[in-house]
Amino acid sequence: MKNVEHIGIAVKDLSKGNALYSQLLGVEPYKLEEVASENVLTSFFRIGSTKIELLEATTEESAIAKFIAKRGEGIHHIAFEVEDIESEMERLRNEGFRLLNTAPKKGADNKLVCFVHPKDANGVLVELCQSIHQ
Amino acid sequence: MKNVEHIGIAVKDLSKGNALYSQLLGVEPYKLEEVASENVLTSFFRIGSTKIELLEATTEESAIAKFIAKRGEGIHHIAFEVEDIESEMERLRNEGFRLLNTAPKKGADNKLVCFVHPKDANGVLVELCQSIHQ
Repeated sequence: MKNVEHIGIAVKDLSKGNALYSQLLGVEPYKLEEVASENVLTSFFRIGSTKIELLEATTEESAIAKFIAKRGEGIHHIAFEVEDIESEMERLRNEGFRLLNTAPKKGADNKLVCFVHPKDANGVLVELCQSIHQ
Repeated sequence: MKNVEHIGIAVKDLSKGNALYSQLLGVEPYKLEEVASENVLTSFFRIGSTKIELLEATTEESAIAKFIAKRGEGIHHIAFEVEDIESEMERLRNEGFRLLNTAPKKGADNKLVCFVHPKDANGVLVELCQSIHQ
């Protein structure tokens, strides 16, 4: 794991979240993006070498809607940048970690992503992400 | 806010947490530290330019014990590195954020710290931290 690529925060209202986090962090989001496959609207703030991602659900089936219904708004996941997501998935499987997807999938911000089961990481939803080279 | 200094994760058992996160992250903790004033044992893992901090409560009065009793193990806070904690506290107060301490206090890893009320940050417990120059 090379770096904390971003920290994902579940919010009910992205435009209110953007206004609040702009005040809190002292920077504006550099990107807004819809990830239709995940039923989320996202925004990204750059802080040093990592990012804060805010996520708003677009449907009730979204994992973000379910998270907020169960736990309220708050930190949803930590994403670690990896060089080679397939080999990191293989390494973690061999260490006994359960992965939530069998193959990398397309996430926000031009990344391939995979999630580790939070029950295998002390309640933390861990995302692995690898930049897609264009 | 210059950088995400660390992400704090509440665990029930620090030695089990250390073993698990060593496997997950592929590195060993570089430091173990008790913060008696906060009733916690902590460990730190370096990942690129940020850190993962695991926290175990040493008493039932610890904020970490209360967090785990209420929500289970998981991500407890995000700490942002700031140049000058007093001026950042002043800036946030002026923006309308409530702070959980009126003056910076001594935290783990040789830092002055202050917390922002999670109700003012979409459920996220935000820590400001400034390195103590020695």
